[in-house]
Amino acid sequence: MSNTYDAFVERLHELSDINHAQGLMSWDQETYMPPRGAPMRARAMGTLAGLYHERLTAPELVALVADLKDAELTGDAVVNVREIDHQQSRSLKLPKELVIELSQTESLGHEAWIEAREKSDFALFQLWLEKIVALKKEVAERVGYEGAMYNALLDEYEPYARAEEIAPVFAQLKEQLVSLVEQIAATGRYPARGVLDQEYPIKQQELLGQQVLADMGFDLEAGRLDLAVHPFCAGTSRDDVRLTTRYSADWLPGSLFGTIHEAGHGLYEQGLPADAIGTPAGASVSLGIHESQSRLWENMVGRSKAFWTHYLPKLQVLFPQQLSAVGLDAFYAAVNQVEPSLIRVEADEVTYNLHILLRFELECDLIEGRVAVAELPEVWNERLEQYLGIRPPNDALGVLQDTHWSCGLLGYFPTYTLGNLYAAQFFHQAHQDLPDLEAQIAQGAFGPLKTWLNEKIHARGARATASELVEEVTGAKLSADYFIDYLWEKFGALYGLSR
Amino acid sequence: MSNTYDAFVERLHELSDINHAQGLMSWDQETYMPPRGAPMRARAMGTLAGLYHERLTAPELVALVADLKDAELTGDAVVNVREIDHQQSRSLKLPKELVIELSQTESLGHEAWIEAREKSDFALFQLWLEKIVALKKEVAERVGYEGAMYNALLDEYEPYARAEEIAPVFAQLKEQLVSLVEQIAATGRYPARGVLDQEYPIKQQELLGQQVLADMGFDLEAGRLDLAVHPFCAGTSRDDVRLTTRYSADWLPGSLFGTIHEAGHGLYEQGLPADAIGTPAGASVSLGIHESQSRLWENMVGRSKAFWTHYLPKLQVLFPQQLSAVGLDAFYAAVNQVEPSLIRVEADEVTYNLHILLRFELECDLIEGRVAVAELPEVWNERLEQYLGIRPPNDALGVLQDTHWSCGLLGYFPTYTLGNLYAAQFFHQAHQDLPDLEAQIAQGAFGPLKTWLNEKIHARGARATASELVEEVTGAKLSADYFIDYLWEKFGALYGLSR
Repeated sequence: MSNTYDAFVERLHELSDINHAQGLMSWDQETYMPPRGAPMRARAMGTLAGLYHERLTAPELVALVADLKDAELTGDAVVNVREIDHQQSRSLKLPKELVIELSQTESLGHEAWIEAREKSDFALFQLWLEKIVALKKEVAERVGYEGAMYNALLDEYEPYARAEEIAPVFAQLKEQLVSLVEQIAATGRYPARGVLDQEYPIKQQELLGQQVLADMGFDLEAGRLDLAVHPFCAGTSRDDVRLTTRYSADWLPGSLFGTIHEAGHGLYEQGLPADAIGTPAGASVSLGIHESQSRLWENMVGRSKAFWTHYLPKLQVLFPQQLSAVGLDAFYAAVNQVEPSLIRVEADEVTYNLHILLRFELECDLIEGRVAVAELPEVWNERLEQYLGIRPPNDALGVLQDTHWSCGLLGYFPTYTLGNLYAAQFFHQAHQDLPDLEAQIAQGAFGPLKTWLNEKIHARGARATASELVEEVTGAKLSADYFIDYLWEKFGALYGLSR
Repeated sequence: MSNTYDAFVERLHELSDINHAQGLMSWDQETYMPPRGAPMRARAMGTLAGLYHERLTAPELVALVADLKDAELTGDAVVNVREIDHQQSRSLKLPKELVIELSQTESLGHEAWIEAREKSDFALFQLWLEKIVALKKEVAERVGYEGAMYNALLDEYEPYARAEEIAPVFAQLKEQLVSLVEQIAATGRYPARGVLDQEYPIKQQELLGQQVLADMGFDLEAGRLDLAVHPFCAGTSRDDVRLTTRYSADWLPGSLFGTIHEAGHGLYEQGLPADAIGTPAGASVSLGIHESQSRLWENMVGRSKAFWTHYLPKLQVLFPQQLSAVGLDAFYAAVNQVEPSLIRVEADEVTYNLHILLRFELECDLIEGRVAVAELPEVWNERLEQYLGIRPPNDALGVLQDTHWSCGLLGYFPTYTLGNLYAAQFFHQAHQDLPDLEAQIAQGAFGPLKTWLNEKIHARGARATASELVEEVTGAKLSADYFIDYLWEKFGALYGLSR
């Protein structure tokens, strides 16, 4: 069996190497590629995607997987065979013509969406979205599913997750969030955010970002930080992780929390198990778990009072004119203001998940046929008003704001909320295991937390599925309770509310 | 036939797209890749090289080429079938084991060379070079050759060139150069270079580089300029050309002439025919022709009196303290000082080719067995003394200075001198076709020259072979006369010599 498994791993390394090239090409496209390079880049990326698909579904690899499924396997071999079988069976069920049609429709649909958003005219996008939804349903039918058809789409981003399992958790969360948002609004308190709305020279913001990256333990010998219009974390391997951020000269939180968020992703990548590199066992588990790492650092650490106990004095040195007069409590309140708003990516920690839940529900409704694409704008506006008490004045600020659906990313949104829930559940456990965690954060000493995350989550690679991992690390299944408790504890105190 | 040709072109595009990824990975490795990324990058590049080789020699493409060779073809189809047949037959003749052994030997040999050069101890590299030469001879035997065995190696860098044709041209050049160098030395004139040896703030050097790039017509919407330890021009397509340079704070010429040199390569790439993109007909012809474009701009334009008539006043604005006192004649003489030296990459325009001719002769002698690897250091030193009148005090400054042989690049060196000869021959023709060329350069108006190069050379892609192209453009076969005339005219005047 060892020869068969070695041949199998050699093919996994080839897949991983193609991924390496794809990762670099994506990163470069958003950072350094000159404008006129775009069409050829698109073509080359299409070719590499085709090569990847061809190698993943090559008869030789199919045969190796079939042989290995019949064999006695242990350790990483079990994981690698399970994961490649999972990816391969999905790919084998999708005819090349469907993949190409989907890719072309997404590309044209994305162009249509850009124009529709610019003109705030949903009609320009409607036919494309209808086609995308129809194609996605065909994908689901072909790859197959148990339970909701939506599961076939969700599985691409959060493997093995099921709508039936997450929907009740999300429903509980929604009820609590709507109530919390209402209670916060009822206090009439609006922390003064003016302190953040000043001129913050970019040079100093860069110094701050470098400092925080170093403090978090992000290894710049095995990674970089560059500029991009839409910040992201990409890269080619655990030894080469690329973060990006963007700076706004009159708004401090954007680059700072953006950098912390992406560095959270980056620490996960850098912490993946070196001995399984180039195979699924050595890769991250799911987008939800990935997002838990970025949100844990961004919000639970970066927007905590302990964090600012350490960093506010440092900020005051970097920005004496802007910040010398502000106290810790006022600054902490400013970076944690809760206020219902229209745009998801700018939402605060409390309202954010209501934006996601809205999208998750609508995706399920679209796939199950309960809502037609044509009805989307109206249903969107109605539900947003129900959840947040505000109504978009136009579609650009409503249903057209996100790029995801135009790119065929149906089933992706729930990973954001899963990330927040996982983050709270992990962070709760970290507090159990590290009783001094708050004090350490208040000293800018992130080493123990990073080590804990490295050991408990990063170094596990994809050896456990997301839900297994959560249960392994926290001793409990996924639950909204941890996140709700976290929000109540933090925002209850900030807004003088008790449950 | 059209269906067969379309299928053939589709496969050429795939090869070009794999090249696109490889080009980006190489560029990134020298510019932005974090240090720890190197091992995985090496692996991924190996995988992509393997994929390229596999697709180039795939039975389907072999069959397409065979069909097309029997067909009536016209235009670019002739070129594309000829070039792919040429590359494919070579690759098909090299067993995978030989390719892998060569690659591993080069990799280990390169490591050994680094240590040998550091310790100036040829013995540490000797066994590796012996192995590399033996493997290269095996490659030559397998791919086959007419005339000298060396032709099989030369062909990889300068397709269709033959040692029998270039050796007499090089011999004529050598005789003339040795004599010219002696006569220059006999004048006892050494232009004052102190003016170049001052502090030149890097910020200002960057501004200068940007200005010259823009003046040359390098399109920054379709290219970039970045930093690298060893400057080069790379990229992924004619619409995405990456130049690199390096700055030295106390030596102006390095970055300036380096940038002009690479931009010369870059203009060639940006000028390739858009209608043949992704196929050999739309690619550059040979390394020699590529080098002719960089050397033409670097030396014949950048080190000309006309060029400095325009740029010296601009330089004096950028560097008033350093340059306000220097006159045009003195500055022009300073950037054109001739002095025999040990290191090829630092050599002036007159002595440079003697460094190359030495290497070309030694490569031929090694392959034909006239010189043994063990004898190389001594033979090197003797011949350098014959040609330039100086003798390396150690091997680090002699036979170990270049990386090429350690990387298996045997047959590459002659392309540098071919580049200089082609450049002079093209530049001579440009003067015939553009009678105002000198005056235009003296006004910093490079448009006419760039357009001429675009039309005569760049837009031809690889439709003609290098030697056909030279004859097409200049009406004459490759000859050393143009370059010798150019040197006499320029350096005769500078050193008060007449032929």
